[in-house]
Amino acid sequence: MLPDQTFLRIPGPTPIPPSVQRAMNQPMIGHRDQEIKDLLHSIKPKLKPVFGTSQDVLMIAGSGTAGLESVVTNTVRPGDEVLVIVTGAFGDRFVQICQEYRIATHRFDVEWGEAVKPEAIEDYLKQHHEIKAVFATFCETSTGVLNPVQEIAQVVHQQSDALFIVDGVSCLGGVEAKMDDWGIDILITGSQKALMLPAGLTFLAVSDRAWQVIETNERPSFYLDLTKYRKQLENDSTPFTPAVSLLFGLKQVLELFEEEGLDAVCARHKLMMNMTREAFKTLGIPLLTSDQAASPTVTAIKPHDFDPDALRNVLKKEFKLTTAGGQQHLKGQIFRIGHMGYCSPADVLQTISIIEGALHKIGKHVELGSGTRAAQETMLSGGS
Amino acid sequence: MLPDQTFLRIPGPTPIPPSVQRAMNQPMIGHRDQEIKDLLHSIKPKLKPVFGTSQDVLMIAGSGTAGLESVVTNTVRPGDEVLVIVTGAFGDRFVQICQEYRIATHRFDVEWGEAVKPEAIEDYLKQHHEIKAVFATFCETSTGVLNPVQEIAQVVHQQSDALFIVDGVSCLGGVEAKMDDWGIDILITGSQKALMLPAGLTFLAVSDRAWQVIETNERPSFYLDLTKYRKQLENDSTPFTPAVSLLFGLKQVLELFEEEGLDAVCARHKLMMNMTREAFKTLGIPLLTSDQAASPTVTAIKPHDFDPDALRNVLKKEFKLTTAGGQQHLKGQIFRIGHMGYCSPADVLQTISIIEGALHKIGKHVELGSGTRAAQETMLSGGS
Repeated sequence: MLPDQTFLRIPGPTPIPPSVQRAMNQPMIGHRDQEIKDLLHSIKPKLKPVFGTSQDVLMIAGSGTAGLESVVTNTVRPGDEVLVIVTGAFGDRFVQICQEYRIATHRFDVEWGEAVKPEAIEDYLKQHHEIKAVFATFCETSTGVLNPVQEIAQVVHQQSDALFIVDGVSCLGGVEAKMDDWGIDILITGSQKALMLPAGLTFLAVSDRAWQVIETNERPSFYLDLTKYRKQLENDSTPFTPAVSLLFGLKQVLELFEEEGLDAVCARHKLMMNMTREAFKTLGIPLLTSDQAASPTVTAIKPHDFDPDALRNVLKKEFKLTTAGGQQHLKGQIFRIGHMGYCSPADVLQTISIIEGALHKIGKHVELGSGTRAAQETMLSGGS
Repeated sequence: MLPDQTFLRIPGPTPIPPSVQRAMNQPMIGHRDQEIKDLLHSIKPKLKPVFGTSQDVLMIAGSGTAGLESVVTNTVRPGDEVLVIVTGAFGDRFVQICQEYRIATHRFDVEWGEAVKPEAIEDYLKQHHEIKAVFATFCETSTGVLNPVQEIAQVVHQQSDALFIVDGVSCLGGVEAKMDDWGIDILITGSQKALMLPAGLTFLAVSDRAWQVIETNERPSFYLDLTKYRKQLENDSTPFTPAVSLLFGLKQVLELFEEEGLDAVCARHKLMMNMTREAFKTLGIPLLTSDQAASPTVTAIKPHDFDPDALRNVLKKEFKLTTAGGQQHLKGQIFRIGHMGYCSPADVLQTISIIEGALHKIGKHVELGSGTRAAQETMLSGGS
């Protein structure tokens, strides 16, 4: 087997584009040099369309969870009531953080693999008037569900004065987001998914009404105090040492987005989702989610007649292709394919054709080439 | 379309493995430092098995043609008779070099796409007794033919005292070569093909009997005087400034060869050839060469009902996949796919599935997935 070749098809971290890798390899600079100011100054306007906002997008050196935690500590205080919509493992994480801070946490559980129905949240809010914030996951990484955050935002604002806070970690940069238009108050993401960077940066954009809440809120955290980041970013700076290499890379990522066009980036992700889904439908291997609930960035497959982890082992050992397994109660029941960031329709063709081969190796005799053909047909009808 | 992604599937230059790229990015060192001696010392023994020789393999900073020219200037002199076996454009190049040096050049032409028959060379040498050297091309890049150099070596030595000199540029490192056992007197290659490096290094190994000829020959070249390279390499050095970055990369390439095993490297190339050929047979698109004459490193396809350059344009523009066209009288009649070096069976699956899609785009409606299936079946039956 060819050494030094790997295929990373998990829902993040994702492969780094060569030009981004080169950008990150630039010589280090002082974190208070003018170069950093210039870098942040050029990054700021280019990040806004990714979030669909006119607000500055804050950047914190840390993983996505630091971003999620910062939102909790900045917007609510112990005893406040919040509603967390839990459609999988990452909704769960919001609950854990809220509980850690002794927030009065209502959890609204949806069966894993399904998207939340806005009407259900509407009903819930009608019965609970003290909710200060509603937390939702945009793409639920653990199941490959894309929740209808635009519609949820609408019912949240119709039924309450609560802030609507969205974890966009595993999809932002791969799906359309119109934070301002849709009425999302805080939108968070991380660097290692559709943003094609290594992990280590988390991003947040905050609406005016959320800033009002934050400004009057007690903040138990020093590092995660969002007002510090806002104030410094106005002067193209950061309150603490920024992750300089990641900023070098981010600038290049945003230039790649501009080169392709954000609409085209989102269309490419939808196409990759459709190619992947049509392939597995043709192979007769069930998908975890419905077409309506499916995310453009990650697809979960729930086979009924073979062990997904046996397939994943063959993919990893014999083809160096890494996929993700199931989490919590879906462990051993599903496998997940990431198709986001530095990933093309041609990569999906390769992934599917490798999986067909690996299926044979574990004794699941699909018609070779048939899933690939379905993906090709989808690609050809959807343009490339 | 995803920017910053390209697929380089020409018969060289080939993609650089990431670890080789990283090795070449090491800080520069002085070309007379002890580090260079250590580097050459570690490279020397690892290069020998690639050539199948106990001789030191000389390295010259230059492209493959510099290597070919060095052989001509070092082994023959104006007026000497040589035989050049021409099976395509690179046989032609040997003729041009010989003519430039006013060598009395016999050319033995074989129809492009066919391999030379050893019996034909046997007959030729029976009728021409003054031939001092026979030049052959191992893999003829322009047609994807692998000439039977082992058998030709045998007839050359049975029928004459001529040196047998082989251009191995587009296959060495991807096919088995047993220079000493087979009786090849000089074997030449370049860095940018199956050796997975950028262009800029040419390699030569020379038999004892060829050294005897070289030692007594007048050499009109200073830079290409092979005796200088031999003498310095004995002391782990080079007569002129070496291409240091390429040597950094070469060390890593040779370590990748050791990791995979040279036999496995050659088996992988054969498998990729078979996968490619079976795919086009199933698609009903003719191959230029017979199975017997085919090279494990490059495949030429000669379609009868579509323009290969139209296909190549779509592959390049819509999929960023670069293939090669035809040369000289095959221009516009064939296209060529390189499958050597940093290329895996999984990459062949991807290449074939992309080509199937591109064929549809130019109006050639093959059965989608059928070529991929043939490649998958070949892969599964041949192991991976």
